[in-house]
Amino acid sequence: MALVTLLTDFGLHDYYVAAVKGTLLRLAPGTQLVDLSHQIAPGDVAAGAYMLGAAAPTFPAGTVHFAVVDPGVGSRRRILAAATGGEQPALLVAPDNGLLTPLLGDARIWSVEREDLFLSAPGATFHGRDRFAPVAAFLLRGGDPAQLGPEIHDPVRLARQPPSREDTLLRGAVVHVDRYGNLVTDIPAAWLPPSPELLVARVGSHIASRLAAHYAEIPRYDAALLVGSQGTLELAMRGEDLSRRWGVGAGAAVQVRWSPPR
Amino acid sequence: MALVTLLTDFGLHDYYVAAVKGTLLRLAPGTQLVDLSHQIAPGDVAAGAYMLGAAAPTFPAGTVHFAVVDPGVGSRRRILAAATGGEQPALLVAPDNGLLTPLLGDARIWSVEREDLFLSAPGATFHGRDRFAPVAAFLLRGGDPAQLGPEIHDPVRLARQPPSREDTLLRGAVVHVDRYGNLVTDIPAAWLPPSPELLVARVGSHIASRLAAHYAEIPRYDAALLVGSQGTLELAMRGEDLSRRWGVGAGAAVQVRWSPPR
Amino acid sequence: MALVTLLTDFGLHDYYVAAVKGTLLRLAPGTQLVDLSHQIAPGDVAAGAYMLGAAAPTFPAGTVHFAVVDPGVGSRRRILAAATGGEQPALLVAPDNGLLTPLLGDARIWSVEREDLFLSAPGATFHGRDRFAPVAAFLLRGGDPAQLGPEIHDPVRLARQPPSREDTLLRGAVVHVDRYGNLVTDIPAAWLPPSPELLVARVGSHIASRLAAHYAEIPRYDAALLVGSQGTLELAMRGEDLSRRWGVGAGAAVQVRWSPPR
Repeated sequence: MALVTLLTDFGLHDYYVAAVKGTLLRLAPGTQLVDLSHQIAPGDVAAGAYMLGAAAPTFPAGTVHFAVVDPGVGSRRRILAAATGGEQPALLVAPDNGLLTPLLGDARIWSVEREDLFLSAPGATFHGRDRFAPVAAFLLRGGDPAQLGPEIHDPVRLARQPPSREDTLLRGAVVHVDRYGNLVTDIPAAWLPPSPELLVARVGSHIASRLAAHYAEIPRYDAALLVGSQGTLELAMRGEDLSRRWGVGAGAAVQVRWSPPR
Repeated sequence: MALVTLLTDFGLHDYYVAAVKGTLLRLAPGTQLVDLSHQIAPGDVAAGAYMLGAAAPTFPAGTVHFAVVDPGVGSRRRILAAATGGEQPALLVAPDNGLLTPLLGDARIWSVEREDLFLSAPGATFHGRDRFAPVAAFLLRGGDPAQLGPEIHDPVRLARQPPSREDTLLRGAVVHVDRYGNLVTDIPAAWLPPSPELLVARVGSHIASRLAAHYAEIPRYDAALLVGSQGTLELAMRGEDLSRRWGVGAGAAVQVRWSPPR
Repeated sequence: MALVTLLTDFGLHDYYVAAVKGTLLRLAPGTQLVDLSHQIAPGDVAAGAYMLGAAAPTFPAGTVHFAVVDPGVGSRRRILAAATGGEQPALLVAPDNGLLTPLLGDARIWSVEREDLFLSAPGATFHGRDRFAPVAAFLLRGGDPAQLGPEIHDPVRLARQPPSREDTLLRGAVVHVDRYGNLVTDIPAAWLPPSPELLVARVGSHIASRLAAHYAEIPRYDAALLVGSQGTLELAMRGEDLSRRWGVGAGAAVQVRWSPPR
């Protein structure tokens, strides 16, 4: 069964998500639809990219990912189709604004120029329904992405400072705050030594000096560092929203230090 | 595959949406379920009607639309089933309170009186599960709506002042505020001349004097008029929620003027 | 078609729900997914149990219910699989923390110890994806729950004061506040006499002295007692959120009295 996931900043109060789904089902009947999220903050391409990079790899081979966080809708920004490699190849449809960044590693990418696929529509404000949906439907019906337009090699990519490591110091950033207020960082957990001594994680003036295996191990109202669900370090507080308590959000710098072995 | 959409004011925090879905799947196994929205403000029939009118036409022929925004649940208001005409005929199930207004153009409508279909239930507060769901399941199993009860010709319709036009003046109203704060009006974009000079849109004491093709064309923090995704005029501000900035919501009067050709 | 429902406290802003769905579809392709809710307050096991108990019985026989509200994730708490009896047997997967309480009546329960099913993962914070999802997929593929581990008879159950009755006095509690602000109690409506005289429901210092058949029958801004959708008594205010008006939430004690027959 054809399977499409949907990631947008449309929210759930408007008719936008439903109109995309209706169009997908009209043009590719019987497709299974799965929401990644529609709660990306309006126009927050980086948050959308993070979400897509975390969720898409869990889906079966052949899944089509429809991703539209598109503040440039109607402008001359390109529409991209992409095919990822690896064990679970996926197909992607998104605006060319960096949204696909985490998935483009070894992907082939095409600039969609098949205007015959686009739906005629009154305005130029809803390409999700009028352009991205019919392109996704083309792929869901088994269409070859190479027939959508010329292959390109210069997609927009989000530039981000990568995390870095020195002897006993790791530097990175909070890349996401989750519903529980946990601070997800981009620092690979594998960079920590097996049993670091006198470990201290610092975010601004706040520190956590405990490494926990899971949340329930943290003493109540204490903060700790954990290995998060994507293999990066994460900061959490038991029984409270750490992001709120510390007043820290996505983008904040994070340092992790420990004592050098004697 | 049978396909049903769901539109309610049930929200996502309660068991109500799930109980409707469970009942639909119990009575019409294998049905594909698609949410239109469950975030209609409690009892806001007009907002539900707007959403339904915007989303339903995108779905394939034969789709059943289950729509329950029903402050009169349990009272003697009728339960309606309807079959729309046109290229993509659809089936509708809703309370008789105006919710179906935008879709009733050439529809045939029946008052559902098949009490044998209804589920026995302790109270009279959840007809979504106990009455609307089994009626929708009847249609999803291929049942003939004409067997649900007598055909009627007097459904409740929402009365609304239609937009109007004079020489160089259009009058209408904000009919919806979307997630981005855009003000969607009911004024047909086709009523504007091809290249209006000295265009001014006015909402209360606020004005926008620019006509934009898409959002990215609007200077930052400037307001503009656009052709919206349903073919009506829309007011938007780049980089900010215009509804909040102007303090304007659904129902506000909108005037659009331009200079007469010399 | 295999059918799974999902109940979590993951919210809709994170990648967690999507990663569970991707994993389920990767391991049990073609499964139909239905959300019960992902809006359980973080860690609120009792609210999750309430939701599950209300929604699950509406689903068809053979449905798998995936329920993860799991503040003890990663700790030594057991993972349970269960099979309910009755007319519509269902399969359940959840942490052993009381979440399944309302459905365990005549269920058989197993402690899941099949580590070969679990996915290897970097951290221990996301058993929803790494353990519960593959166990649910095993059941969705037709696996026998008895092969998941030893049968157990001591699952954690939520202890709750049951409602009680004397001559003309019923005592219970608010067990849920719904989107409309209605106060759902645990007092069986069947405990009321057919036509109680001088009925008074009391919550703290607030009283309602009307028994209504449905919401539209209540005078505007008046409070009333109704038979709710699960067969228990419910308090509602017409045109306003009663929970907010009275400042009453889940857990509040409720008394219902009436005049003794003369």
